[in-house]
Amino acid sequence: MRRTVRHLADGREIIYFDSLPDAPERTAEDTRDLPPVAATSEIRRDPLTGEWVGMAAHRQTRTYKPPADLCPLCPSKPGKPSEIPEADYEVVVFENRFPSFSQGVVGEKSTVDEMGLVPTAPGRGRCEVVCFTSNHDGSFAKLTPAQVRSVVDAWADRTAFLSTVDGVEQVFPFENRGEEIGVTLSHPHGQIYGYPFVTPRTERMIDVARAYQAEHGRPVMGDVLAAERKSGIRVIAESEHWTAFVPPAARWPVQVQVVPHRQVADIPSLTDDERDDFAGVYLDVLRRCDALYDRPLPYIAGWHQAPVHRDRDLGWLHLELFSVLRAKDKLKYLAGSESGMAVWINDATPEQIAERLRAAL
Amino acid sequence: MRRTVRHLADGREIIYFDSLPDAPERTAEDTRDLPPVAATSEIRRDPLTGEWVGMAAHRQTRTYKPPADLCPLCPSKPGKPSEIPEADYEVVVFENRFPSFSQGVVGEKSTVDEMGLVPTAPGRGRCEVVCFTSNHDGSFAKLTPAQVRSVVDAWADRTAFLSTVDGVEQVFPFENRGEEIGVTLSHPHGQIYGYPFVTPRTERMIDVARAYQAEHGRPVMGDVLAAERKSGIRVIAESEHWTAFVPPAARWPVQVQVVPHRQVADIPSLTDDERDDFAGVYLDVLRRCDALYDRPLPYIAGWHQAPVHRDRDLGWLHLELFSVLRAKDKLKYLAGSESGMAVWINDATPEQIAERLRAAL
Repeated sequence: MRRTVRHLADGREIIYFDSLPDAPERTAEDTRDLPPVAATSEIRRDPLTGEWVGMAAHRQTRTYKPPADLCPLCPSKPGKPSEIPEADYEVVVFENRFPSFSQGVVGEKSTVDEMGLVPTAPGRGRCEVVCFTSNHDGSFAKLTPAQVRSVVDAWADRTAFLSTVDGVEQVFPFENRGEEIGVTLSHPHGQIYGYPFVTPRTERMIDVARAYQAEHGRPVMGDVLAAERKSGIRVIAESEHWTAFVPPAARWPVQVQVVPHRQVADIPSLTDDERDDFAGVYLDVLRRCDALYDRPLPYIAGWHQAPVHRDRDLGWLHLELFSVLRAKDKLKYLAGSESGMAVWINDATPEQIAERLRAAL
Repeated sequence: MRRTVRHLADGREIIYFDSLPDAPERTAEDTRDLPPVAATSEIRRDPLTGEWVGMAAHRQTRTYKPPADLCPLCPSKPGKPSEIPEADYEVVVFENRFPSFSQGVVGEKSTVDEMGLVPTAPGRGRCEVVCFTSNHDGSFAKLTPAQVRSVVDAWADRTAFLSTVDGVEQVFPFENRGEEIGVTLSHPHGQIYGYPFVTPRTERMIDVARAYQAEHGRPVMGDVLAAERKSGIRVIAESEHWTAFVPPAARWPVQVQVVPHRQVADIPSLTDDERDDFAGVYLDVLRRCDALYDRPLPYIAGWHQAPVHRDRDLGWLHLELFSVLRAKDKLKYLAGSESGMAVWINDATPEQIAERLRAAL
């Protein structure tokens, strides 16, 4: 994998990942006249829940559903410069123009109130965009296994790099797909957030993993994985190194965890074999997802990685994919119970979801 | 307040609340031929997060946007029977026909897997619907203070009753309003969930309150309230017994907490004066919400009450209202960061939100 680091007109980094030996040199210049990136975000800790919240007022003006011929994630064409100066690319990553967190944020740690109830800090971190393919009309599900491998290598590279960025405590590569979850750019792409704190979800899972380890002497995910592989009732796809299953207490109408058989903290820790093997299982899951309602499934898919600086032994890398679609044309809304009290009510059992996904192809 | 308990054709309870001395006797019979209520829900505890999830497969077929002349929450008309047999009502509560939790669920506590990783139990609890007014085209914001007082008394009555229902551990009265959050019935109404467990959100807030109390000897909400009242920068409305403010680490584009000045565990603990006084502050907040974008604001509003059987001394009753609308025609979507990692990124600061709400009227 060849890595070429360049800079966009406003100074943001862009990194080309090329696996093909005959890939051209990435030398194109960004000819646009871009304003500097706004970097004014802050984080505050909620005094009642203890959870950090990000605030990024400059994001109100972010790009909102541009027409396809102005897609900022397609390669540049003569007279139509995009975010990617090259005329083509394989996998490319660049710093988000409307970042929730960025390295350039100035400011000091402080508190919102005189009593110190609400700690606040600059939203210092880094947010990147990952273009999975230059094909505007493609999707992750339509990538070849070799393309998936390139994306995995790009995720690994970015996780390793972001883990060295000052202030970053957790690296979260994810894909939002579909208008139903607010995606404004249809070009196949994902994002990576380098958070300046360990996220509430991960904090919670670490607490559970720590208690389980203390009681049983084993990682909880290892036992969950063993139980799922043994019963098989919720398993969707399996390979030498990975198993994909509907979690036994699924919250979402469609939800799948793709879990490596070996405990690793993050994507960079995966071996070559494990990376190659991931493509088969994940592409199978994605094709079933698109077949489920006979339409492209809107989904969120994200990598659970261990925190950068602590509790790395308690993490067990896995990808979680879920969808808000509970029927071909019906959304699962997050209303009072979910958004107010964090109690999900699922219209389907995990076993039903697994059965439907297995039957979809 | 006169309470009349009757039963619908399928055996569900309906309770009429009448404050007017000349209210007619509530004697109308439900003439419909209704099938028995399905009661098949279960709860499972997620082995990776430790959080309970509800599963209610029978809810797939629930009522979905009926035409207005068939509104099931309007009073019955000759030949058009609704959920409310009477020809009119003031405030009425009845058991939900498509309950997430109900008293009739059979089954035993068990585990999904042989290893005991995923505890499961019948979804035993109770879900009720609260009609705020018989006026189909009304809204909570358009109620009179006297009507609001009747609703508060109904909430208090139901909280006290549901707290005695076998298995109920937390009572959550809430209102979902607006199509944007999936409300299928536009008639002004709310719901009450009697959960068979303490909700994840409340568990988290109790942990934080316990730690704060141990360190400072005071309830955290008391200090937050004092800080907000002193600075005033996020305060929207204030009265003798209540203050409404945008929380200092707000997650949502619109978010307001309405907090009583005295620590009470739940709505039944409010005095007459406190109940009367609530209407003024809350109606003011709601009118500002509807004025904010010059359109009825879709929102979720829910009461944080202490658990029924434990940690009641750590609770501080309050109502939290929030909206997914970040501009007149733009939704805040819960995508990868929010739904995957529980990190909210707000496009506005709490101070901006408060300023807009104060300027709205």
